[in-house]
Amino acid sequence: MTTRRTFLKAAGLAGGAVAVAMVNRAALAALPEPVVQQQTETMPPLFPDTGRPYNPVVTLNGWTLPWRMNNGVKEFHLVAEPVVREMAPGFKAHLWGYNGQSPGPTIEVVEGDRVRIFVTNRLPEHTSIHWHGQRLPNGMDGVSGLTQPAIKPGQTYVYEFVARRPGTFMYHPHADEMTQMAMGMMGSWVTHPKEKHPLIGEVDRDFIFLLNAYDIEPGSYTPKIMTMLDFNLWSWNSRIFPGIDSLNVRLNDRVRVRIGNLTMTNHPIHLHGHEFQVTGTDGGPVPLSARWPEVTTDIAVGQMRQIEFIADEEGDWAFHCHKSHHTMNAMGHDVPTMIGVDHRGLSKKISQLIPDYMVMGERGMADMTEMEMPLPDNTVPMMTGEGPFGSVEMGGMFSVVKVRSGQKPNDYSNPGWFKHPKGTRAFQYKKKIKEPTRSRSAGRQSMPRTSKPAEPVEVRIRKPMRHMDH
Amino acid sequence: MTTRRTFLKAAGLAGGAVAVAMVNRAALAALPEPVVQQQTETMPPLFPDTGRPYNPVVTLNGWTLPWRMNNGVKEFHLVAEPVVREMAPGFKAHLWGYNGQSPGPTIEVVEGDRVRIFVTNRLPEHTSIHWHGQRLPNGMDGVSGLTQPAIKPGQTYVYEFVARRPGTFMYHPHADEMTQMAMGMMGSWVTHPKEKHPLIGEVDRDFIFLLNAYDIEPGSYTPKIMTMLDFNLWSWNSRIFPGIDSLNVRLNDRVRVRIGNLTMTNHPIHLHGHEFQVTGTDGGPVPLSARWPEVTTDIAVGQMRQIEFIADEEGDWAFHCHKSHHTMNAMGHDVPTMIGVDHRGLSKKISQLIPDYMVMGERGMADMTEMEMPLPDNTVPMMTGEGPFGSVEMGGMFSVVKVRSGQKPNDYSNPGWFKHPKGTRAFQYKKKIKEPTRSRSAGRQSMPRTSKPAEPVEVRIRKPMRHMDH
Amino acid sequence: MTTRRTFLKAAGLAGGAVAVAMVNRAALAALPEPVVQQQTETMPPLFPDTGRPYNPVVTLNGWTLPWRMNNGVKEFHLVAEPVVREMAPGFKAHLWGYNGQSPGPTIEVVEGDRVRIFVTNRLPEHTSIHWHGQRLPNGMDGVSGLTQPAIKPGQTYVYEFVARRPGTFMYHPHADEMTQMAMGMMGSWVTHPKEKHPLIGEVDRDFIFLLNAYDIEPGSYTPKIMTMLDFNLWSWNSRIFPGIDSLNVRLNDRVRVRIGNLTMTNHPIHLHGHEFQVTGTDGGPVPLSARWPEVTTDIAVGQMRQIEFIADEEGDWAFHCHKSHHTMNAMGHDVPTMIGVDHRGLSKKISQLIPDYMVMGERGMADMTEMEMPLPDNTVPMMTGEGPFGSVEMGGMFSVVKVRSGQKPNDYSNPGWFKHPKGTRAFQYKKKIKEPTRSRSAGRQSMPRTSKPAEPVEVRIRKPMRHMDH
Repeated sequence: MTTRRTFLKAAGLAGGAVAVAMVNRAALAALPEPVVQQQTETMPPLFPDTGRPYNPVVTLNGWTLPWRMNNGVKEFHLVAEPVVREMAPGFKAHLWGYNGQSPGPTIEVVEGDRVRIFVTNRLPEHTSIHWHGQRLPNGMDGVSGLTQPAIKPGQTYVYEFVARRPGTFMYHPHADEMTQMAMGMMGSWVTHPKEKHPLIGEVDRDFIFLLNAYDIEPGSYTPKIMTMLDFNLWSWNSRIFPGIDSLNVRLNDRVRVRIGNLTMTNHPIHLHGHEFQVTGTDGGPVPLSARWPEVTTDIAVGQMRQIEFIADEEGDWAFHCHKSHHTMNAMGHDVPTMIGVDHRGLSKKISQLIPDYMVMGERGMADMTEMEMPLPDNTVPMMTGEGPFGSVEMGGMFSVVKVRSGQKPNDYSNPGWFKHPKGTRAFQYKKKIKEPTRSRSAGRQSMPRTSKPAEPVEVRIRKPMRHMDH
Repeated sequence: MTTRRTFLKAAGLAGGAVAVAMVNRAALAALPEPVVQQQTETMPPLFPDTGRPYNPVVTLNGWTLPWRMNNGVKEFHLVAEPVVREMAPGFKAHLWGYNGQSPGPTIEVVEGDRVRIFVTNRLPEHTSIHWHGQRLPNGMDGVSGLTQPAIKPGQTYVYEFVARRPGTFMYHPHADEMTQMAMGMMGSWVTHPKEKHPLIGEVDRDFIFLLNAYDIEPGSYTPKIMTMLDFNLWSWNSRIFPGIDSLNVRLNDRVRVRIGNLTMTNHPIHLHGHEFQVTGTDGGPVPLSARWPEVTTDIAVGQMRQIEFIADEEGDWAFHCHKSHHTMNAMGHDVPTMIGVDHRGLSKKISQLIPDYMVMGERGMADMTEMEMPLPDNTVPMMTGEGPFGSVEMGGMFSVVKVRSGQKPNDYSNPGWFKHPKGTRAFQYKKKIKEPTRSRSAGRQSMPRTSKPAEPVEVRIRKPMRHMDH
Repeated sequence: MTTRRTFLKAAGLAGGAVAVAMVNRAALAALPEPVVQQQTETMPPLFPDTGRPYNPVVTLNGWTLPWRMNNGVKEFHLVAEPVVREMAPGFKAHLWGYNGQSPGPTIEVVEGDRVRIFVTNRLPEHTSIHWHGQRLPNGMDGVSGLTQPAIKPGQTYVYEFVARRPGTFMYHPHADEMTQMAMGMMGSWVTHPKEKHPLIGEVDRDFIFLLNAYDIEPGSYTPKIMTMLDFNLWSWNSRIFPGIDSLNVRLNDRVRVRIGNLTMTNHPIHLHGHEFQVTGTDGGPVPLSARWPEVTTDIAVGQMRQIEFIADEEGDWAFHCHKSHHTMNAMGHDVPTMIGVDHRGLSKKISQLIPDYMVMGERGMADMTEMEMPLPDNTVPMMTGEGPFGSVEMGGMFSVVKVRSGQKPNDYSNPGWFKHPKGTRAFQYKKKIKEPTRSRSAGRQSMPRTSKPAEPVEVRIRKPMRHMDH
């Protein structure tokens, strides 16, 4: 508390100078040089840091933008520019972003901070930045044409406002918006509460990332910007599994994950093994009386959701979008079904036309993960990600929450795969399986009425079902 | 209450032996023979049953899997296998499911039950089962590659855990997930509370079903497994209207419907004539203070919703997904619009090329329901379902909640169509319609300002609107 | 209050005659002549009006249907018919609607009113009207086939019921539903509370509109009715920006916006500069304890949402669907990406085949708004809408909430563009930008650890990123 108050005084904010004041153009110092980041790892949470009156957020596969203090104003510099983002090991996308990456860096401030953001446009077309969810003067809202002229290539614009309410926000262009978001232009924003807030709990771990989607044809580098629905890369912070870092937490940590959606569809984010609550939105904290328990929360486009849970179950818990195509990587979605089809003849015929032809998915798609298929350059396989027990057969919007008990204080490095205590893992039943007696007459039968459920049920014999038998 | 305590004692669970204990492999008895079901009717709710300490759920067009008791553990046997599902009368789909059906049987247990589930794989590829929403040891979570090896064809795996929290759950593969869910592999799970629960109300009727979707071309049998969005069969428990049973309830019954979504999009489920509340999710019961009134609840993918209402309005009330394409059956969605087009010439020309050509949808699509169109084999018409007043022109995710007063105790059989009391049904107005005077000059006019709303309004004459007149 | 009681007495409703009574066919007077509206402007809210015991809703680019009183029953006449809707200046669509427009007029009554609605069918196929969300006799529910015969062309049907619960509703056909909603058949309904209601707050401004979508190919007039997902016109009350009126309010007004969705997908409606709450649904008012703060609310298909906020920030605030394709107008969504591609050669080759060929989107799409491209007849540009600072580059589901302080009492006319107070608008930074020193070795570097955040950060130099450099 003392630390916090001291900081606020130093920053000239104690006493709550949050009123909207005029921007004094004469006071502007030289443009700060932009800080740039080209790594794709999650930057360490800079924790603990006694000079910082809050527990900083961890941007998944991202980073937080430093600022400079100028007469009590936090100054940031964002540069809109083409970037190369390695979306997964070996797969690079040509995107547009900020300061060397897509998404841009997270901006992290404290309620009541006055912020000044310089935005330089190094794109080939005009842009602007809208500060999604913020209370600010109308002229700082960043809607090109409506509240300001667009920022032309080469120009730098200045936005200035007070971060009036604590919460989870994002930023993105409001100029040629469809193109620029389809190219990856977006970033996260967190405003920490100045004082303890009854609805904003303190947490041990505080993650943030944005949901985004791209349509990049296998073998190519640049997204198709006109795609409305048929995206083939569904990503978190422009990364796809197995390129997404795990969320490492300690047993019984209180964990917050802040997620924003800038795709073209809802994403139902699902956590295994734990229930959570949505504790806040980009509109503010959710009252305690209004919170629901969930294992899957649906995040709509242009929404942010803060979810919170106690990580009280040890293990490696899957955490992903529940739309099954969104946990796949690019391969096209138009492979015809071969399940149940005997195509030995067909395959032969096609092979005469197309050498090396092989039928995909004849027995399902799981074979795909083991095939040595030649992929186009710069493409990740459709289902991938090696786990401790073989392929996880997942891509896209998928990661793992790793909950561990025995870690050292302040060590949130990746603990490797979970070691299951004896007797707590599904196992193969090795006794010989007694095949049911086959009987032609048993095809249509009713379910046994089990009037005494505590007794072994009377089991009826079954006619084996064959796939093509009618 | 006494009955419940007695049962729990008999089952060896009184005292709450719910701690996670090691699985004792040596104690495993012989593999239980699988119980199989091939009917598509809703199995009767086995009600009343004094040996069962809960009001069992009714699986719509489905059934509940019996178990055997083995030293205090409820043992179930699921067999993953190809199945034939009659999705509507005369239309059979080749799916993958469990124990003879898609979806698999509902698993229904009591909070605190220790359950052991044997899973045998009779598919042509590997699989696993994830117990969506359950609290369980990480190694029982069923994510192949991550928490266990995949179950290879021919193998049987054993899952064992305590059903720790009451609620509504589902199960589905977490191996080649996109394929296996697109083929129909899924099932429901209900854990009843052990004691009265302040947020889990007692209900008279308790239904459960899963939303699923398939892409089966007219005339074929097997779903296309790579489809992301353009499904043509939107189903409840792998059934489409008119193949979905009605939900029969008594007037003033408290009704719960538990619905899970395993498609690729949200489904807004709409009930006519009543308001309802979402009283629980797969994350747990919703606090009373947090409940909303709704007539349509949007169920996201990978979510379950429990809705509850008092059936206090007699009648046949439509109950359906509100996306209009989801109450249609397969016919392709690419018929060109002919509305408003005079295509007598066009039609003639096409007829020379395609004998028997007829223009579809010239006056809308309602004609389609009455046409004697030759359909491909194994196809249901696009809009169908006969009601008491002609075609309901619905397919897919549609059913009827039948609320009746005069039924016998415990009789929830289909009561037939509702008989409307005299004077309570929309009727044709037979008096001669006075045609408005036509006037060329009245084309653009403002709405009459009705300063005295209790008086008859002054009615302006109208210029008749013709469809192609400019 | 006195006024209200007087009105209710005059209308014969005091004392609460809300019981469902038989329709007396003999009492039916001659069919009221239909009132028709062909303008597309928002009709003034008829405010103040001392004869009306409620603050009337403002239907965005629409109007409210007058009624006539007949022995205590409010009689309305809806005519289902083909209409021409000007969706934006210069772009006319051939739709189906009611009383000259799509959507049809808003029906606005008071809780407890007995209403009688005559529905005349002037379409080329049968129809019906379902009164979405209403409590009513089953036979008045409007589901053709199930609760009544369809209304054949030329017929008039009579619906009669008591508006039993206050709230926000809609009406639409329940006969050949997919076609008729794809053609624009729908309308809004508001039932005001009879007495002060603890959960239905009084507001200064009360707007209502429906979300709808069309698939009309550029250059044509009639929607394609079989489209499931790939709509190209996303509209509010069948209008697209810049054809949607602004929502004009006074500073500190309490504002309610009632929105219903009859498209095929969710629409996340986003308001700039303010937080709001969802205070009600088509199921009823949301309890105070259950309300969330939001800046974006996701409205599912077949749902209605009432949002409320205090307009306490002056300015022109964007208000739109956050799916970026839904704020675009028709142009096809299949233009290939040219970003980053040097196609001087390609362009030359294509020009030999297609005269006047130009590459679209080479530098993004913003150029498009400034190009003098020849568009097909009857087409609005993709991104359009002139603001005070140039093109807003928006179409579709977009409008502006105009919050002003200095307006005259009861004047809600469009105040023009906002005049930003000095120093409150983003501006161009004109000082010379110091280019960062280039260094080959600085390509991979970690973020500076800023241990003293209140000091200027140490800024590292950056390797400039070029777009195609690998």
